[in-house]
Parts: sequence; structure tokens; C-alpha cells
Amino acid sequence: MRLSELGEFGLIDELARRGLVDRVEDDTAIVGGLVVTQDSLVDGVHFRLDWLSHRELGFRAAAVNVSDLSAAGAEPEAFVVSLGAPPETEVGDVVALYEGLAELGVPVVGGDTTRAERLFLTVTALGRSDRVPGRSGARPGDLLVVTGPLGGAGAAFREGRYLRPPIRTAAGRRLSRVATAMLDVSDGLAQDAGHIARRSAVRCELELDGVQLAGDLADLGFGEDFELLAATPDPLDFTVIGRCTEGEGVELRLHGEPVELDGWDHFR
Amino acid sequence: MRLSELGEFGLIDELARRGLVDRVEDDTAIVGGLVVTQDSLVDGVHFRLDWLSHRELGFRAAAVNVSDLSAAGAEPEAFVVSLGAPPETEVGDVVALYEGLAELGVPVVGGDTTRAERLFLTVTALGRSDRVPGRSGARPGDLLVVTGPLGGAGAAFREGRYLRPPIRTAAGRRLSRVATAMLDVSDGLAQDAGHIARRSAVRCELELDGVQLAGDLADLGFGEDFELLAATPDPLDFTVIGRCTEGEGVELRLHGEPVELDGWDHFR
Repeated sequence: MRLSELGEFGLIDELARRGLVDRVEDDTAIVGGLVVTQDSLVDGVHFRLDWLSHRELGFRAAAVNVSDLSAAGAEPEAFVVSLGAPPETEVGDVVALYEGLAELGVPVVGGDTTRAERLFLTVTALGRSDRVPGRSGARPGDLLVVTGPLGGAGAAFREGRYLRPPIRTAAGRRLSRVATAMLDVSDGLAQDAGHIARRSAVRCELELDGVQLAGDLADLGFGEDFELLAATPDPLDFTVIGRCTEGEGVELRLHGEPVELDGWDHFR
Repeated sequence: MRLSELGEFGLIDELARRGLVDRVEDDTAIVGGLVVTQDSLVDGVHFRLDWLSHRELGFRAAAVNVSDLSAAGAEPEAFVVSLGAPPETEVGDVVALYEGLAELGVPVVGGDTTRAERLFLTVTALGRSDRVPGRSGARPGDLLVVTGPLGGAGAAFREGRYLRPPIRTAAGRRLSRVATAMLDVSDGLAQDAGHIARRSAVRCELELDGVQLAGDLADLGFGEDFELLAATPDPLDFTVIGRCTEGEGVELRLHGEPVELDGWDHFR
């Protein structure tokens, strides 16, 4: 069987079943008291350099990793960065890329640089959190809240551009104190709510009427909005877009009617 | 200017000069008490899949990162792994790759999987060390020691194969207690000794007669032997191949005559 048939989540399940990966259900891991996350951005897959400047790419690589830390209630302390780039890349472009990475003020303390046919960037972000909600603690009765508008990334992509991911470190810290489960909306709202439903053994019922739409409804399936989605008994001042109930799976409703949304899989 | 003109070390210097990277002179960084290192392996650059099985590639990715930890006197605690792979990759090959990664018994606690035109693997290794020698503490009078034979990787490469990198965790821990500077021989003996010379502001005088050669003399320039090179006033039971003196640069001698060796640069 090929990766394209099994899919990204199928692969992770298969590796976990064989004991070859551990605790990878969340986007972050805790190692020696540090919260650690890692994301790779690949030219032609996650970005197109004709749509995105090198500086914006650097910022994006920083922001998507900080987003995963935010979902763990963590403040970033350091980045470790691996850059693969074609030898003909202009040094000025690489400098711009690292300037984008530096925008959030998180030091790049190490990494690797190497030749590659197409540019890729792997960022490991390390941070500290007082409490990591994880994904498995949501309970029936918890509300589902989101930290901002959704669909904007999909809408931008349709127009041949990328939105700057929002930085939700402060919201993540506040929510981490009360959330029973939290993640960032990167795979698509239905897919991400599904992660909480499956890990917490609850049903996630989403009322899309409550979602502040920054694009079309179908854009919610694109993901990459990088807002935080949390299950919590206390919504604080965040937008409530649904609730957890007994059961399983994800139910999406708009004006009371069920709707379906696609999600994102890197190998399909 | 292009990366191919500036070179890998030139790029790192340029980024450091602009304050865009921090403390990256060593292959490891210390974040919140953890030793962190990261290496990327790229198909067609660091390996060829017709020379190396997926399982051997996984082992290699684990081993080269553990090698950097060993040079910091650190025991590995966890890996975070990003895999980029073409969608048509066989799942069995990916499983074999993670089996190779798992050979050292270090858990893979997170990471990312993504589509890519050519396979790449970024491994972040996290560990703990009682004492990280770094590269800047070598003093005139220190001896230079190495933990094993050199040149084998270059010789194997000439024959269209790869050697399994040695695991020097135990030697690294022992040496870390007495070493004033330590790193692993990955860029080539002259280049790596040069890192110590430059950072410690000493001259490294190497007597190649003392080196246990696993290939030709020219193979020393290939690097990738992943033995540890340490400056230390106490050589313990390791092979002495030179000493640090007042001055700068690296001097290589064979039978008393000066010799020159090439080194490795990823962008050239």
C-alpha cells in the first residue's frame, strides 16, 4: 500500500500500532518539562514562493509552530530550524526568511542547513506551560469555543495568497487554565473537532451559525486558520460554536440543518 | 550572492552577524536544561535510496543526532521526527524507516509527516547532560583525542555504500567530564578540528600517524565518521592524535610532513 492510499492519519495510526511512535496524538509532546512541537513546510506543498515572500514564509513557519505551543498553553522559548534550499537560492532571500522567523522574538538556537532540490523548512519550537490541556479530557456538557474567525485561510488560498497566521499565545494561556481539550484549527474545523471527539470519546456538535466566517462555508474545510478550538466548561469571553455531548463523531449544523465539510490530508 | 558561493558556514556566520540566529556555533543547544540537536537528511544529498535501505536510513537519522548529543555528553531521551515523502512511497518502506529510527530505543514523541517530491527526514533529538563541553574551552597544552577509526565513511561512499554510524554515547559521557571542547567528526577531520581551533582560539596540531585509518588518507576529508574529537588535558584511554597549541588554525602532519585535507560544505 502507498502513502497516498493510507493517508497521513492512517500512517500515524499504523506507526503507533507498531509501537514505533509514542504519544504523537497531540501536536505537542512534553519532554523533560518542555513542550516541544515540530512542523515542516515544503515548497509546492505548504506554500508557493510565487504567492509568498521568503520573509512571510519565515514568519509563517514560526507562527504555525507557536500556534501548536499556544494550543498547549505554552510560551515559546526557542526555535531549532532546519532549512533545505537549492544552491542557487539568493542569500538575501534566506536572510529575509530568517528575518520573518525572528519577527516573534523567539531565538533560533540551532538547527541545520542543507542543499535540497526544493526549499523546505522544519521548525522545532520549545516552550513552557503551566498546564497542557491535551485532547483527551473533553466531557459531555463542555462548550466548544474558538479564538477568532475561520475560513480566511481557505478564502485567501482560492485567491492565490496566504493569510498571516494569528498569534494566540495569550488566548492559549488563558484557555489552558480552563480547557479540557485544546488544539489549533489546522486540518479543517470538522477534522480538528474530530480529533477531540475521538480522543475524548465525546460527540462534538458544532453550530456553524456561531462561527465568525472569514470566507465561504466550504473554506472551513481548508484548515490553516490557526485559531484555537477548545472544549471547556467555562468559555471565558471566547465565541461558543458548539458543545460536547455523549456519543462520538462530529456533527455540523447550519441554521439547524446538517452540513458536511472536507478536511485536509497531506498524502491525498 | 547565492548560497553556492557563500557556503553553509558562510551562511551561518551571516545570519549570526545579523542576530538572526543565536548560539548556533555548536551542533547542540541547551534549552530549559535539555540538550537539543537537529539534523536533516535529504534524498540525493545525504543519502541515495539505491545505496541504503529505508531501515538503514532511519537508523542513520537517529544515529547522527545521537552523535551530536554524545558530543555534548548527553543521553538521548526523545526524538521528534518530520518525514517528507512522495505520495507513492510504500507504507512498508516508511514503517521500515521508523523501525530503523527505533533501533536505539529512543521514543519518537512527535513530529510531522508531509508530502514532498523527494524524501527528507528531520530529526530533533533531546537529551540530558551533566556537563556540555562545547567548543570554546580548549587550551594550549590540551591533547586531541578521537574515539575510533576515521575515513571509513568516505571509503564506503567511494564504493557506493554507507557505514552505520557508531554510537558513542558512553564515550561521550566519559569524555564530557574531562573535555575542554568536543564535537563529532561529521564535516571532515580538518574542518572539525578547525571548529575547535576557531572557537577556542587555539591551534590544533594533528599527527595523522596516530589516526586509525579505516580508508585512505583522503577519506578523512569526507567526514561523516561520527567519532568524537575532544580536546582534553586527560586523554583517559582514548587515542591521542594531536594537541592544542598557542596560535590559530589547523596543522596536519603525516610522518612529520604537512598535508592538506578537503572538507565538506553542503552548498558547494
